[in-house]
Amino acid sequence: MKLKWHRRTVRLHHPFQTAHSPRDVPPAKEVLLVSIEHGGAVGWGEAAPVSYYGQSLASAEEVLLAAADMIGRDPFALDETIDGLLKRFPSQPAAVSGVDIAMHDLVGKLLDKPLWVHFGLKRGPLPLSSFTIGIDRPEIIEKKVVEAEAFPILKVKVGTPGDDQTLSAIRRVAPRKTLRVDANSGWTSANLLDRCRSVLAYDVELIEQPTAPGDDDALPALREAAHVPIIADESCHGVDDVRRCAGLFDGINIKLSKCGGIRQARLMIDAARSCGLKIMLGCMVETSVGIAASAQLASLADYLDLDGHLLMADDPFEGIGGAGGVLTLSDRPGLGVRPRA
Amino acid sequence: MKLKWHRRTVRLHHPFQTAHSPRDVPPAKEVLLVSIEHGGAVGWGEAAPVSYYGQSLASAEEVLLAAADMIGRDPFALDETIDGLLKRFPSQPAAVSGVDIAMHDLVGKLLDKPLWVHFGLKRGPLPLSSFTIGIDRPEIIEKKVVEAEAFPILKVKVGTPGDDQTLSAIRRVAPRKTLRVDANSGWTSANLLDRCRSVLAYDVELIEQPTAPGDDDALPALREAAHVPIIADESCHGVDDVRRCAGLFDGINIKLSKCGGIRQARLMIDAARSCGLKIMLGCMVETSVGIAASAQLASLADYLDLDGHLLMADDPFEGIGGAGGVLTLSDRPGLGVRPRA
Repeated sequence: MKLKWHRRTVRLHHPFQTAHSPRDVPPAKEVLLVSIEHGGAVGWGEAAPVSYYGQSLASAEEVLLAAADMIGRDPFALDETIDGLLKRFPSQPAAVSGVDIAMHDLVGKLLDKPLWVHFGLKRGPLPLSSFTIGIDRPEIIEKKVVEAEAFPILKVKVGTPGDDQTLSAIRRVAPRKTLRVDANSGWTSANLLDRCRSVLAYDVELIEQPTAPGDDDALPALREAAHVPIIADESCHGVDDVRRCAGLFDGINIKLSKCGGIRQARLMIDAARSCGLKIMLGCMVETSVGIAASAQLASLADYLDLDGHLLMADDPFEGIGGAGGVLTLSDRPGLGVRPRA
Repeated sequence: MKLKWHRRTVRLHHPFQTAHSPRDVPPAKEVLLVSIEHGGAVGWGEAAPVSYYGQSLASAEEVLLAAADMIGRDPFALDETIDGLLKRFPSQPAAVSGVDIAMHDLVGKLLDKPLWVHFGLKRGPLPLSSFTIGIDRPEIIEKKVVEAEAFPILKVKVGTPGDDQTLSAIRRVAPRKTLRVDANSGWTSANLLDRCRSVLAYDVELIEQPTAPGDDDALPALREAAHVPIIADESCHGVDDVRRCAGLFDGINIKLSKCGGIRQARLMIDAARSCGLKIMLGCMVETSVGIAASAQLASLADYLDLDGHLLMADDPFEGIGGAGGVLTLSDRPGLGVRPRA
């Protein structure tokens, strides 16, 4: 198998801001695309490293350089190859995920089967995906919510001093839409219940990652008070985190770039189900390659937050849909995406 | 897809006796073979219903009759089909497993890939399987152990008054072999520690299902005293039992006929791993069809107890090996087994 990769700069519709990136980021982003060629077919993957998990494009490229020598000749040897990469690079799951996705796409193409078929999963109905409204000045937020009219489920980052302004702005334009909030570890045990109460006043469906990983003491009281599901994100990276989350959260947000790819995500889903945890599939700002990889498992999820590709003005791939929160699994083999003409 | 089934009587090398079947059973057994034809290929499955789980050949055949109408046209739609069957026939996992195995074999054949390849799993090294020595008079047991000379791991049912005689007989012939004991729920909380102590004197590797399901009160003390893994069998049927077992046992024995097939077994393995439980793959008295189905997952197991086909003098299928406890995954598509010429 011949593994290659390249960076590509994509334009974003809006600057992207979360509790982790308090300043405006220019509306463009470099993505890291991976390809594996074998037997006349090419599998596409994407690595979406995130700096606050100690990963970067450069660190991911180092892993890919090593992976090119490690992946061997058998695209079907996923367990061995991915286990080997995760063992050698435990802190670089995003890069490993890039390899995992490309190998899966390749396997699907060699078998001439979409991955969801290969996995024996249902094509649908899939849950609707949320669409993220980036934090901004209230008048900009109102404009963004208007632009997002087609999306029945919105998600917004909270955990900054302007939460009330943000949520008021959303509710002014969309008083009845399903609304999810993601605190991105932005609250602390000390202010948690107050913050939670003020957010719940805006009728939210769920709360993601209220406090920093490890700052769990107030979570039981929160779950008692909130009456909406509390979903782990930063507290749940990989398979080994699932069981501990079962006592603290109602569900987990599984992202391929946190856990190491499709294969690990399937293990996490199975583990989470057996623990009674709800499952959200989430993403970074990713092209249709990364989104399609998660979407193959979407029939197993309770919540989808797979809108990363929709934030791009010039996604280099297409084939997964997403308008109005509706993701569509295609009949094309592998991930079912193709480079945009 | 066209589903058919037939019973077949196979001869056994020895009468088969456990704590559940205290009297000798004639050395023959009816097996229930399932076939699904689609697109010019035939997938083989096997249902191994067990009476003490409320299943019989007749009840399994009723499920297969309904399944023939329910399985639809798409052999790849495993999640939908198997979930549908398990929902409709929750008390008949052995019959559902027969359908699941046949669909998997069919999928592998349509893709021209062995199932272990299709699953992305390793071919090996696989753990060695144990070989079961049926309970009998001591002189017969000694003879059986001599006959089992090639098998490095023996398993024996305990939980009857003759345990000491049985274990002494085995240790006289095979003083140093790895020995596993299966109490098949035969002990009670009242006599557990005494029985356990006397069994451990024979240097056993693990103890399976010491007490009846639900009679769990003495298990913590047993685990404290035993210093060998305690494996759940009757206490762990399906996915929903895994999490509860994590607090009580060190591992679980996964059998396709208890859980509903390969698909459910994979979910159980993933769940068990995330709970830190060890994994044994076990079987009933089954032909090479049923054994090959479990064996596809063998690289994920800590312990194998896949000797059901070796108890048959005229297994109607071949292709999985088993001599000396060595199971071999073949390069042939699907299960990799074929009717014996």
